[in-house]
Amino acid sequence: MGRAADRRGVLRIDLDATDGRTSVRRPDTLAVEEPLEIRVGRAGPGRRSPLAVTMRTPGDDLDLAIGFLLTEGLIRSTDDVHTAQLCAGAETPNTYNVVDVVLAPGVPEPTTDPARNFYTTSSCGVCGKASIDAVRTRSLFPVADDPVAVPATVLAALPDRLRAAQRGFDRTGGLHAAGLFTADGELVVLREDVGRHNAVDKVIGWAVRERRLPLAGHVLMVSGRASFELTQKAWMAGMPLLAAVSAPSSLAVDLAEEAGMTLVGFLRGRTMNVYAGPQRVLTS
Amino acid sequence: MGRAADRRGVLRIDLDATDGRTSVRRPDTLAVEEPLEIRVGRAGPGRRSPLAVTMRTPGDDLDLAIGFLLTEGLIRSTDDVHTAQLCAGAETPNTYNVVDVVLAPGVPEPTTDPARNFYTTSSCGVCGKASIDAVRTRSLFPVADDPVAVPATVLAALPDRLRAAQRGFDRTGGLHAAGLFTADGELVVLREDVGRHNAVDKVIGWAVRERRLPLAGHVLMVSGRASFELTQKAWMAGMPLLAAVSAPSSLAVDLAEEAGMTLVGFLRGRTMNVYAGPQRVLTS
Repeated sequence: MGRAADRRGVLRIDLDATDGRTSVRRPDTLAVEEPLEIRVGRAGPGRRSPLAVTMRTPGDDLDLAIGFLLTEGLIRSTDDVHTAQLCAGAETPNTYNVVDVVLAPGVPEPTTDPARNFYTTSSCGVCGKASIDAVRTRSLFPVADDPVAVPATVLAALPDRLRAAQRGFDRTGGLHAAGLFTADGELVVLREDVGRHNAVDKVIGWAVRERRLPLAGHVLMVSGRASFELTQKAWMAGMPLLAAVSAPSSLAVDLAEEAGMTLVGFLRGRTMNVYAGPQRVLTS
Repeated sequence: MGRAADRRGVLRIDLDATDGRTSVRRPDTLAVEEPLEIRVGRAGPGRRSPLAVTMRTPGDDLDLAIGFLLTEGLIRSTDDVHTAQLCAGAETPNTYNVVDVVLAPGVPEPTTDPARNFYTTSSCGVCGKASIDAVRTRSLFPVADDPVAVPATVLAALPDRLRAAQRGFDRTGGLHAAGLFTADGELVVLREDVGRHNAVDKVIGWAVRERRLPLAGHVLMVSGRASFELTQKAWMAGMPLLAAVSAPSSLAVDLAEEAGMTLVGFLRGRTMNVYAGPQRVLTS
C-alpha cells in the first residue's frame, strides 16, 4: 500500500487537435482512492470494533487514524493510544486496509450507540453522526487566547509553498493538500489525499504522535474550500489560524468566530479575505 | 430555510492595492452550510430514527433525503416512500432542519446495526459505513447495456451550460453543481450544494419523485472531481455517463468499469479524458 497515484489507460480527446487525430490512447496518472477501516478497542483477545471507514489515499494511515480519533474527541494525546497498527492483508488484500487502534487503559471506548458512530468518505469531514447533537465536538485548547499574529505578506506566500511541496497534485490533478506552517511561513509538514479532511487528519495525527499539540501559533493551509469540518478539526488541534485557497462556508465562519479562530479564505496571489479573527493578520 | 447564500462582513486584503488602502471591510456572500438530519421510520406514533446527518446547503431537502435513500439502496422508487416532510423548527430552529421519512408498508427499515448506519457531511458521499463491506451498494439498473452514445462536441459544451445555470457559484465561489443532461446536451435539472454528493442526491431525488428512473440515456455532469461515491450514486440511478470538470480517483474509474459506465474527466474547453466506456463518446 502507500501508493498515492496509479496509472491507467485513457482516451484523450482534443477536438481542436492540429494533427488531425481527435482522440488518442495514452496513459494517465490518477489519485488513488481506497477505503480504510479504523477499528478501535481494548488490549486483549477481544475483537476491535469497526468505528469508521474513510475513502482515502493510501499512506500515513496511522497518522490518519490517530488524527481522526483526536479530532473526533476520542483521544486527547498519543498517551491515550496503547498501540496503532496496520492490519495489512486483512480479509481482502489490495482492496482495503485496516488500522487497528488499541486504547490505553482508562480511555473510554467509543459508544456503540448508532447515533454516535463515525463514518467518513474520501470527501467527508465531520464524519457524520446520526443526530445533529453528535456533530459538534469540543476543543480542549483555548485557541481564542492565542496571541500569534501573522503578516499578510507571509500568508500570501503560503499557497505557492503548499503547491511547490505537493508531489501528488502535479501528477494527478486530484489530490487535496493540507500544510502546517509556522507563523513565519515555514512549512512544518504537508499531507495529500483525495479527501481534504483526510489530509488534515494526517497532519494532525502526525503532530499528535510528535507530541506537538496544541498547535498554538501555527497556521493550517488547505488547498480547497474551508468547511465546518475542517474548521472544527483545526480547532480540536489547537490551531489559531486556518487559511484556504477557496471559499469558506457560512458554518465554517460561524464556528471560527465561536472558537476565536482566524479564518482566511480566497488566499490567492496577493489578495485574501479574512472572515474571522482579523487581529491575527497584520497588514502593516 | 432554503437560503443558499448568506452575507457576512469580511476584511478584504489586497497587498498590491493601488489606492494605498491595503485592507478594507466589505460584505461578502458565502455558501450556506447547515446540518440536515434524515430520520426514517414507519407510519404511526413511533419515533423515526435518525439515519444520517448531512452538512448541506438548505433547499430541495426532500429531494436530498429521497435521493440519499435511493443511492444508499434503501428505497427503489417513490412508491417506497409513504411520506417525506420537513420538520421545520424541530428542537433548534434556524440551526438545523430535519427531514422525516415514513417508509411505505413492506419496505425494510434500515438496520440499526451500528456497522450499517449512514452518515454524511458537506463533502461526504458514500456516507460511510463502519465496515468496508457496507460501503458498496448494488444498482438495480443494467447500465452496462445502455446503448446511448454522445458526440464529444456535445460533452464539450456541458461545462459552460452547467456554469451558466449555476446561480449560487457566481455569488459565493463555494457551491458545487450537479447537472442532469440529455444525450443531446439539454439541461434537465441542476442543483447546487456545498457538498458534491448532496448536489447529486438532490438531482437524483428530484428524478425519483418525477418517476424518471432509471436515468438511461442521460449524462450527469459534476463541477468538481469524480470520486467513488459520485460514480456509485450515478450508477444507482441508472445513469450510463458521468462527466466531471476535474480528476477522477482510481476507485471511481474501477467502479465505472465494473458497472459498464462511461466516465469522462478533465472535461474542459475542447478537451476531455475518457477513463471508462469510450464506446459512448463519439469523436467523428
